[in-house]
Amino acid sequence: MAEAHVASQPIRRADRARQVADVLRHQIHAGAYDDGLPSEPELATEFVVSRNIVREALAALKAEGLIHRGPRTGTHVAQHKYDHGLDSLRGLQETFDAQEVRNEVRVATTVSAPPSVARRLGLGAGTQVVFIERLRYLGDVPLSLDQTYLAPDIGAAVLAHPLESTDVFPLIEQISGQRLGDAALALEAIPADPHTAAILQLPGGAALLMLERLTSLEDGRPVDLEYIRMRGDRVTMRGTLTRSYL
Amino acid sequence: MAEAHVASQPIRRADRARQVADVLRHQIHAGAYDDGLPSEPELATEFVVSRNIVREALAALKAEGLIHRGPRTGTHVAQHKYDHGLDSLRGLQETFDAQEVRNEVRVATTVSAPPSVARRLGLGAGTQVVFIERLRYLGDVPLSLDQTYLAPDIGAAVLAHPLESTDVFPLIEQISGQRLGDAALALEAIPADPHTAAILQLPGGAALLMLERLTSLEDGRPVDLEYIRMRGDRVTMRGTLTRSYL
Repeated sequence: MAEAHVASQPIRRADRARQVADVLRHQIHAGAYDDGLPSEPELATEFVVSRNIVREALAALKAEGLIHRGPRTGTHVAQHKYDHGLDSLRGLQETFDAQEVRNEVRVATTVSAPPSVARRLGLGAGTQVVFIERLRYLGDVPLSLDQTYLAPDIGAAVLAHPLESTDVFPLIEQISGQRLGDAALALEAIPADPHTAAILQLPGGAALLMLERLTSLEDGRPVDLEYIRMRGDRVTMRGTLTRSYL
Repeated sequence: MAEAHVASQPIRRADRARQVADVLRHQIHAGAYDDGLPSEPELATEFVVSRNIVREALAALKAEGLIHRGPRTGTHVAQHKYDHGLDSLRGLQETFDAQEVRNEVRVATTVSAPPSVARRLGLGAGTQVVFIERLRYLGDVPLSLDQTYLAPDIGAAVLAHPLESTDVFPLIEQISGQRLGDAALALEAIPADPHTAAILQLPGGAALLMLERLTSLEDGRPVDLEYIRMRGDRVTMRGTLTRSYL
C-alpha cells in the first residue's frame, strides 16, 4: 500500500549527469584530483554510466569554472575553492593565511547613511557614516567585493589604519576596546551585475554568493554593516547545524 | 601619516548604483515595498543621487528577478524571498507553513552508491543506497530541486511513506527511533545547468544557492546526504554568528 505513494521512474540521463557532477564536485573540493581528473572512459566505468553522461557532467563543471579541459592535456582542476566558516565570526585574514589576503581599497570616505543603513546601525536618518569598498584578493585572483558601512566613531578611527593589509574586525575591537559580539547574516545567490562582474573578473550574470552581515559589539551596539559579494566559483561556506527541539 | 594609507577617490556611478540596489534589496525583503516601489524621482531624492543611478540600481534588481517594471504600472516587487534558517537543522515543512510546501517526487529508487557518496555515508563502495529526487514547491513556483541519498536501512523504510507531503527529517527520526544529531553543510553559489534550469523554471545559468548537507543520527551515524539546489531568487539563508576566541 505504502509503495503506491512513490513514483519510481527510471533515472533520466540529465539526472544521472547531475549526480555524477555532484560527486565529482565534492571530490574536486576534497583535493582528490589535484593531479588531474580520470579520463572519460575511466569515469564512465567508475560511475557505471555512459560516456555521454560523463561528458555532460564534465560540461556542467566546466560551466561552473571548476575544471578546464584540453584535447591533449586532459581534464584539470581550474581553481580551488576556499572554505569560509559559518560556525564562528571571523574575518578573511583570520580565516586564511594572512599573507595570501590582499585588499585593494577602492573607496574610503564618509557618506550620508541611506535610510535603511542608518536604521540597521541604530542611527538617525542621514547620519554621516564611514563607507569603505574593498576588492579582496586571495592570491592573484579576486575573491570578493566588500562594501562596509561603519558607525561614525568607529569608522573615523578605522580610516586611520592601513586597510590594504588589515581586516576590519580586529581594528574595530582594538578601537572600541570591546570584543565583537554577534553578527546577523543573510546569504543569497545572485547574478553579477555587469560592473561587479568586471571588477571580480567574471562574465556578466555569473553566480555570486552574497553575504549581508550586521556585526555588533559585545555590548550589543551594531557598528558594522557589510555587503560582501563573493565569486561563486571561489568560495564555499561551511558549517555545522544541530537539530534543536522546542 | 595614517591617512596616507587610504585611497579616498570619489565614489563611481556604478558603485553608487550598487549601494542603492543593496539598500533597496534589503527593504524589498523586509516587505517595505509590498504596495510598489517609489518613483524614480522619489528614489533619487531619498538617496541623494541622480535618476540615472536609480535607473541602474533598478535594472540590477530587475535582472535578479526581484522586481518587475511597467511603463504604466510602475515598479513592483516580483516575488518574495523566503528565509531559511542557518541556526538550527530544520526541514522545509518545519520551516514554512506545511500547507504551502508540496513535493513532486521525480525519482525514488535504489542505486549503487557512487564512491564518494558511499564514503561519506560510511558504507562500502557500491553499497545499494536509496536515491530520491524531489522538486519542491512553495506555493505555485518551484523552490528547490533536492537529491537525497539515504543509508539503505533508513532509506527502505522512508520509501514506504508519502514523500509528496512529508519532510524526510521527521521520517528518519520516526524510523530510527532516534533524534537527528548534527549536519555538516556547505553552501555555494553556482550557475544552473540547462536541465536544472528548465526544471526550476529559470533561464540557463541563473544563480542557484547550492546546499550540500550530510546529516547524522544522534548516535553519530551519517544517514542522509542531500544536494539541494535552491532558486537564488527565492531563498535567503539567515543565521547568527558569534565571535569565538581561542
